[in-house]
Parts: sequence; C-alpha cells; structure tokens
Amino acid sequence: MDFASHFTRQLDTLKADGNYRTFANLERRCGDFPRANRHGDTVDEVTVWCSNDYLGMGQRPDVVASMVATVQSCGTGAGGTRNIGGNTVQHRALECELADLHGKDAALLFTSGYVSNWAALSTLGSKIPNAVILSDEMNHASMIEGIRHSRADKVLWKHNDWRDLDRKLHATGDRPKIVAFESVYSMDGDISPIREIVEVCEAHGALSYIDEVHAVGMYGPRGGGVSEREGLAHRIDVIEGTLGKAFGCMGGYITGTTGLVDFIRSFSSGFIFTTALPPAVAAAATTSIRHLKASGDERARQRANVAEVRRRLTQAGIPHMANDSHIIPVMIGDPVKCRMISDILMADWGIYVQPINYPTVPKGTERLRITPGPQHAPADIDRLISALTALWSRCAISHAVA
Amino acid sequence: MDFASHFTRQLDTLKADGNYRTFANLERRCGDFPRANRHGDTVDEVTVWCSNDYLGMGQRPDVVASMVATVQSCGTGAGGTRNIGGNTVQHRALECELADLHGKDAALLFTSGYVSNWAALSTLGSKIPNAVILSDEMNHASMIEGIRHSRADKVLWKHNDWRDLDRKLHATGDRPKIVAFESVYSMDGDISPIREIVEVCEAHGALSYIDEVHAVGMYGPRGGGVSEREGLAHRIDVIEGTLGKAFGCMGGYITGTTGLVDFIRSFSSGFIFTTALPPAVAAAATTSIRHLKASGDERARQRANVAEVRRRLTQAGIPHMANDSHIIPVMIGDPVKCRMISDILMADWGIYVQPINYPTVPKGTERLRITPGPQHAPADIDRLISALTALWSRCAISHAVA
Repeated sequence: MDFASHFTRQLDTLKADGNYRTFANLERRCGDFPRANRHGDTVDEVTVWCSNDYLGMGQRPDVVASMVATVQSCGTGAGGTRNIGGNTVQHRALECELADLHGKDAALLFTSGYVSNWAALSTLGSKIPNAVILSDEMNHASMIEGIRHSRADKVLWKHNDWRDLDRKLHATGDRPKIVAFESVYSMDGDISPIREIVEVCEAHGALSYIDEVHAVGMYGPRGGGVSEREGLAHRIDVIEGTLGKAFGCMGGYITGTTGLVDFIRSFSSGFIFTTALPPAVAAAATTSIRHLKASGDERARQRANVAEVRRRLTQAGIPHMANDSHIIPVMIGDPVKCRMISDILMADWGIYVQPINYPTVPKGTERLRITPGPQHAPADIDRLISALTALWSRCAISHAVA
Repeated sequence: MDFASHFTRQLDTLKADGNYRTFANLERRCGDFPRANRHGDTVDEVTVWCSNDYLGMGQRPDVVASMVATVQSCGTGAGGTRNIGGNTVQHRALECELADLHGKDAALLFTSGYVSNWAALSTLGSKIPNAVILSDEMNHASMIEGIRHSRADKVLWKHNDWRDLDRKLHATGDRPKIVAFESVYSMDGDISPIREIVEVCEAHGALSYIDEVHAVGMYGPRGGGVSEREGLAHRIDVIEGTLGKAFGCMGGYITGTTGLVDFIRSFSSGFIFTTALPPAVAAAATTSIRHLKASGDERARQRANVAEVRRRLTQAGIPHMANDSHIIPVMIGDPVKCRMISDILMADWGIYVQPINYPTVPKGTERLRITPGPQHAPADIDRLISALTALWSRCAISHAVA
C-alpha cells in the first residue's frame, strides 16, 4: 500500500471539487472585537463577520480577568482526568452554574461540545439495552458520530417534522427511545419546533436530548437557550451546550437529572479517559455565564444588529435565508465561487467571512454564514453591505458577459 | 422504559463492586506544586502524588506568564473551529513547534489527546479502503474507540509482542495495514520495544502509529519521547502526543508527513467540527515545549525522584511493579481496599494518590499509581514512605487477625 499516494489522490479530489480548506491565519485582539489581525505576506486588520464568539464574551474584561486570575493562582492545566487529580473547585463551580442555568439537578463538563454530544449519545445508546435513537436528519456531526459509535439502532426523522417523529416513535414499539435534536441549527439558522417535539417525546415515553450549542447565552431571559425562552427546559431530559461559542471559552456540557448525569459520568469513555479542562477556562466560563444570566444587553444588541443586517441585505437584493435566529446564511451554491467571494471580501474590503463548503453543508448549498454580534458598529454594517453589493453587481456583470 | 431506574441500577452495581468513582475536590496552588488544597468539610493542604502534570510545567512562571499574556492580548477563546474563524497565529506556532519536536514535516492540533487518537485512527481506518488496524491489546481507550469507530477490521496483538505482531501482519496479506501502539503504557508504566515493532512494520509496509502521551516532555534529549531517545522518530509514520500531561496544558496532536497530516486535517470529523483550543492554551504549551527542548533539568530531577521512591518502596517491602518509566504502580488488587488506602492516605497523612480501579485497569489489578515529579522534596518522599509503611503494617495486622 502506497499510503502517500492515497493521501495525495484524496486531497487532489478535494482540491478539484473546490472543497480543500485553507485557514485564515488570525490574531485576535482583545478588546477590539470584531477587529482582528490577519497574517499573510503582510499583517492586515480585518473585521470578523463569522465568529462563533457570538457576543464577544471572550474579550469582556471580567471574563478575561477571571481567566488571568485563575491561571495566576492555579496554573495553566488541570494536571489530570477529573478522576485522577484533575477535579478542581473551578470545575465544580461551573457545573453548579450550568445546572442552575438550565434548571436541572446536575451538569457534567466535557472538553468540547463535540465530545459532549459524542460521549453522551454514545453512552446512552450503548448502555441502555435495546435502545433506539431517533435523530433529526440535520443533526450536527458530533451527534451523528456519537449515535454511530453507540451501535444502537438509529432512525432518522425528517428535519423539524414532529409528525414524522411521532410516526417513527410509534413504529419502534416498546423499545427504549432516545430523541436527539437541536434548537438552533448552525448552518441554516432555523429553530426547531421544540414544544411539539417534546410533547411527542412525552407521549411515547422517549428520553429527549436537545443540543443548544448555538443558543445558550443568546436565547431565554438568562441565556438558558431556546428551551428556556419557551419555558420547556424542565420537560427536556438532557440539555447539551457549549462554552466555546456565546460564552467565549472552550468546553461542552450536558445537564439533566442527578441519576442521568452520574450515569454518563460513570460510564462514558470520552469523559473518563481525558484530561479535564484547565481550571482557568472553567473559571472564565463561569464568569461569562453569570454575566449573561443577569444581563440582556448583549442579546438585545445582537438581535438589533442581526435585524439590521437582514434588512439591508434584503434592500440590496442579496439572497439570504430567512430564519428566526442570529445566523444569516447568504447562499452561493458553488464551492469555488463561495471561496472566491470570501477571498475578495478579505483582500479588497478587509472583511472576513469564511466560505462554508462541504462537508459542513451539503454540496450545492455553499454559503457565506454571517453572524452579526453586539460589537459590530453601524459603519461595519455599511461596509459589509457595500462590499456584498459591489460583489453581487460584479457577479451579475460576469454572468451577463458569460 | 423507566430510564431513571435503569441509571440507578447500573450505578448501584458500580457501587456494590467498589467501582463507583468519587472525585477529590482540589484547588491547585500555582507555584506550590505538588502542594494543593483539598476542599471537603474543611480546606486541607495535600501533597499530590498522582498528577499527570508530571514535571510541574503547568506552574512554571514562564508558562503561566505566556498564558496570561495571551489571554490579555487575544481573549479567552478561539471563537470558532480552525476553519471558521478559530485559526490563530498561536495555533500555527504550536504546530510548527510540535513538528520540530518530533522531526516531522507537519503537526495537527486537537482539543485533547483522547480526541487526537480517536479522530486520527478513525479517519485512517475509515478513509483507507480495506485497511486493517493491528492494535496492541493494551492500547488506551481513546485508540480502542477510534479504531472501533472507523469500522475497519481490527486485529489485536499480544502486548508488546512484536513476534505476534509479525505473524498477524503476515496473515493480513496485501491489505493496507496500520499498526497502533504506545511507547509508555500509562497504568503499568512499561515501555514498548519500539525498534522491533518499527522493523516489523517496515518489513510489512505497515503504517506505524505511536502514542507518546506519557512520554513527550520526559524522554529524549529534547523531550521528543521514547522514539526520540531511541533515535527512531524518523522511522515512525505518526507520532501522537498530548499537551495535557508533561507540558502542563491541554490538547493533543499528531505529527507526520505533510500529506498524512493534511489528509487527517481535511477528512477528520473530530478535527473539523469542533472549536479550536484557546490561543492562550496554545501559547502556554508552546512555551512549555520550548523550555523542555532546551532543559534536561526537570527530566533529571524526575528520574532521580522516581529512582529514590522505588528504592525506598523496595526497602520498605511495599510491592510495586518494576518498569523503566516514571510511573510506579503499587498493586492492591481489590477496588474497595484500594479506595480505603487512598482515603486513609488523604485523611491521616495529607497525601493524595487516587485509587485506580476498573475500567481504567482490569478488575483484580487495582492499584495506587504514584508519579514522582521533580518538585517532590526529600521530606515528601519520607512522608509517603512512612505513610505506606504504616498502612502496610496495619493491613498485615488485620490479615493476621482475620
């Protein structure tokens, strides 16, 4: 086997399809968000329009100060797994904060949101005999991989279609059922009909598992996600979230009953056999969550900027996908064109919006995914709209010529 | 399905078997390592003897300063996946440092060592058609789960037995072969016969994959692991390591050829769909690695303390497993007794050594796993030996009475 040739061939195929990824080389500038430096042949200032630090919390002075203070008092790492020397007061405090955020008995930290979904679903699916997992067909890769890893039977239900879920739950008979779905879907930005899904789950005695990673911090009066906003958190068995997006740090978690959380804690390979988050990251996340429980200001300013960008895009005739979230997908539908537009935005306008190509989205639905935050100024929005308008007219001209 | 009862029953079984885990609630004290506070009814000072911050690097002033400076200049989190807004100069610098550490073309960061093994092996196993993975039977959970997830055919070979590996490679015919093993095995502390394994791999054209998580920073003239010490790094295709143990931070990585690393980067779900490490963690890890490339002092003092603890244990007649590494397993062989001894060490002596029970080690091989570091003082060693001697004589007495 010539491994090197195999790798080259596979990468060549990616490149030929326009799906080969190159990473922008950024330098974040604390306090200047959404401004950052981009390192290339020169170092240029860019305005970031695609960050998942949705509320700029990763640069808030109190969040930064909390991380700094804990590094200085406790050092850089945890020094072990949660079980072997790596469990600290900072982890405990954060888990208490998260349980409270979602009105649950208990919470459990993981090293990332990806790992929390993968580990929790693979444990539930493999350690509940004869379980079947009913998964929304648009669920995130981390859920898909967790379900796959569990080797439990999987049933896909049509995206956001609770009637289809109901039918498929019926068809599983009296087997233990786990229903996995998201609140805000990352790439289309649509919000699921949580109430209907929960009611269907209750009717069938299914365990409900919701991924709120693109919602925590941003929805609900205390940032508890869409399930909080809709008053449904207490009716959902597992609420999963992340510390790496609106909370501005790193890590993931689940919340639920004491028994369920202890079960995952005790049996999940992806929890047990890995070094704990640095105490300083846990401390910063705790500060961030506490702030967003009390302050609605960031959420209000985010909503206002999202509405304004949408309005201006519509006004400028730039096609964007309608949804009820903070995520604005500007559809391109071609991987090469998508990267080209992104490159021009960066080079000519100092605007950074990463092209979103396969496998993050299905082929043919390539897009720019714009995430306005509270720190984007009116002048930033003007510039974004001017740039896109100029590009769209240029594309229209080239289409006319072709 | 009564989920709650199922969880309770499973947890009750763990408890009845003595395998239910309770976490020590620690507060690390930067600069005082191996001293820490333990929070219970009171806050007590303990001496940690089971940390995987093997060299105390997580508390070194320059490593701490590096993390603090980067939090202050760049904020707390990366703000996105490596592809979407989360790739920073700190990640790039760290990957260059890691490639250099192992003498490889390229390196790729993951959120943890667990994820690096899981993601790399699952990608290699699933994306190389008809591959078979030959896995040392004692490999870490993260490798086992990665191989399982790949759905590639798996062949176990006897622990450290390169002749068995050779036979089993023969039996796979001309299929693409991947051989996965570790340098230092975490729980027994034994070191694998890397040269023989590599030669067998070369003879069969197999891709070799070594996990050096319990070796990087601690072995080899620059901390490049046992493969560096043995002058074999250039003959191994993939060297995997962690930033969460001897480097004192968090995260994992692989190193290899540009093509292999780009292949994993481009196709691995566990790399693509997850928020990048905080830039400050990457910066701290870079500082730590650079220091240990230049300084052999920590390694020398660690080796001296390991030798001294071994010598004193032998002198005191306390059974410990012989090996050539820094890990000293004191065998207990019973989960309840193992926890009891650990509890007494903590309560009566202020010594923290976590009991290692199933599933981390096979049932019947429960142990205390002692990891002497450069910061343990002669008085710490005296106290550890006194405590264990007192406990062993107490156990002997209770055996005699029973």
